[in-house]
Amino acid sequence: MKYVHGYTAEESVRLVKQAKPLGDLFHDDLGFSPGQKVLEVGCGVGGQTVLLAKKWPDTEFVSIDKEVAFIRQASEHLEKAHVDNVGLQHADIMSLPFDKESFDHIYVCFVLEHLACPVDALFNLNDVLKTGGTITVVEGDHDSFFCHPNNNDARKVVDCLTKLQAMCGGNALIGRELYPLLTATDFCKVSVKPKSMYVDSSRPDLIENFSKSTLIGVLEEIKDQALACNLIDSDQWRKGIDALYRSTEVDGTLCYTFFKAQAMK
Amino acid sequence: MKYVHGYTAEESVRLVKQAKPLGDLFHDDLGFSPGQKVLEVGCGVGGQTVLLAKKWPDTEFVSIDKEVAFIRQASEHLEKAHVDNVGLQHADIMSLPFDKESFDHIYVCFVLEHLACPVDALFNLNDVLKTGGTITVVEGDHDSFFCHPNNNDARKVVDCLTKLQAMCGGNALIGRELYPLLTATDFCKVSVKPKSMYVDSSRPDLIENFSKSTLIGVLEEIKDQALACNLIDSDQWRKGIDALYRSTEVDGTLCYTFFKAQAMK
Repeated sequence: MKYVHGYTAEESVRLVKQAKPLGDLFHDDLGFSPGQKVLEVGCGVGGQTVLLAKKWPDTEFVSIDKEVAFIRQASEHLEKAHVDNVGLQHADIMSLPFDKESFDHIYVCFVLEHLACPVDALFNLNDVLKTGGTITVVEGDHDSFFCHPNNNDARKVVDCLTKLQAMCGGNALIGRELYPLLTATDFCKVSVKPKSMYVDSSRPDLIENFSKSTLIGVLEEIKDQALACNLIDSDQWRKGIDALYRSTEVDGTLCYTFFKAQAMK
Repeated sequence: MKYVHGYTAEESVRLVKQAKPLGDLFHDDLGFSPGQKVLEVGCGVGGQTVLLAKKWPDTEFVSIDKEVAFIRQASEHLEKAHVDNVGLQHADIMSLPFDKESFDHIYVCFVLEHLACPVDALFNLNDVLKTGGTITVVEGDHDSFFCHPNNNDARKVVDCLTKLQAMCGGNALIGRELYPLLTATDFCKVSVKPKSMYVDSSRPDLIENFSKSTLIGVLEEIKDQALACNLIDSDQWRKGIDALYRSTEVDGTLCYTFFKAQAMK
C-alpha cells in the first residue's frame, strides 16, 4: 500500500489549511463529555486534532498515525497550539496497540479510503471501543464533485486522483459505502449524513481554504504521478486545473459531498 | 418547449408522493409571517402547495402553473386537504399577470430547469417581488446523483433524462448555477445551500418515497422517449433500472443533491 498524497512539506501545509473548513463541517455534533477517552485514527499532521482538542478541552484524546513523520509534525503543531489533552502515538489501524474496550469514542477521518481492507480495520476499531461507545467515520467520495462552468475538464483531473488511489489499493468513492461497511462490522444504530461542501463567490474564505488549498491543492500534488501513469496528458491536465480555478471566479461554483457516519458498539 | 415529464395520471400520482420528502428537505427555514403574500411558481398538482399552505395557515399563497390540467388537479388536491389560503391561477412565468411589487415572497421549485431562458424568468419574478421581499429557488442537478453498488449502469439511465431535458430546451444541471443566475438578475444577499437527499436502508420511508417514487419513478416515465431517441438501448436501460432498484436493498445507498437559493430584492 502506497499513500497517494505523499509526505511532502507542501502536503503538510495543505493538511493544516484544510483542517478549519473541514472541522467546521464535521465536528458540529460530536458532543464529547468531560473525562471521556477518544481515539483519533490517522491524525496526520494534527490539523483536526488541534480543533478537536481545543473544542473539548476536558476530553482525553489519543491520536495515532502510521507515518512517523506525521506524528513528529503533529507534535510540533500541538505544542505551538498549547494543546495538552492529546497523547500522540505512532500506530497502525491494522494492528492497534490498545486493550479491548479502551475508548469511549473513536474518530476516523479520511483513513478507510486508503485501505485495501476497510472491513478488517473497522473490526479492529470495534475491538478497542467500549460496549455502548460510539464511532464517527468521515470519508469523501470523489464522484460527488462537480463545478460550474467547464465541469467535464475539471472532472478529468479529479478522476486521475480516483484512479491513482485505486492503483494504491484504496477507494476514493468509499463515502457512499459507509452505511454497509459499518453495519457489516458489528456496529449498531448506524446513521450516515451527507456533508456537502458548496462554494461560490459569497464565501471567499471557502474559495481559499477549500477550493484552492484543499481540492486544487490535493490535485496539483498528484500531477506528476498522473502524467507518469498516462492517466491524462499534460494539455488535458492544464485544461482541468484551469477549469477548477475558473470555478473559483465570481460566477463559478463548486460542490463536493463528504459522508459522516455515526454508530454505536 | 416541451415539458419532459409529461402530464400522465401516473406522473400526477408521483408528484404528490414526492412532495412530502422534498418538502421536508426544502421548507425548513422559509419562515413566512402572517399576512404575507407569497407567489408559488409552477405548483403542478399542488403537492408542495398543500404542505406550504398548512405549515403557514395565516399566509396568503398565489400558486400558478402554465398547464391548465395541473391547475385543475391542484384544485381537487387542495379541496381534499381542506386548504383555504391558496388562490390557484393559470399563468406562465414568462408573462406574469401581476402588478409590479405584488408579493412579499416568491417560491420557485423545479421550474428554471425546464426553461430556455431562466434569466428572463428571474427578471420577471424580480418585477413582481416587493423591494425588500425575498425569493426561494430550488433546483436539482442530475450530475450530483450516485449510488452503491453499480453506479455506472444507473448513471446511464439518469443521463438519459439530462439529455432529453436538454433536447426539450431545459437544463437538468441548473442547480449548480443558481448563484450566478440570481446575482445576474438583480437579486441581492444571494445565499445557496446544497440540500442532499441521501438514502440507505435505515430509512425505508425515503426508499419508498424518494428512491422509488421520485427518482426511479421519474426515470421510468421517460423510458419510451429515451429509447425512441436512441439515447440508450433497452438492455442497458434495464440494467440501469435494475441497478437503481439494487441500491434500495439492505446494503445499497443513493445520493442526490438539490440546491436551495434564497435572495432579496
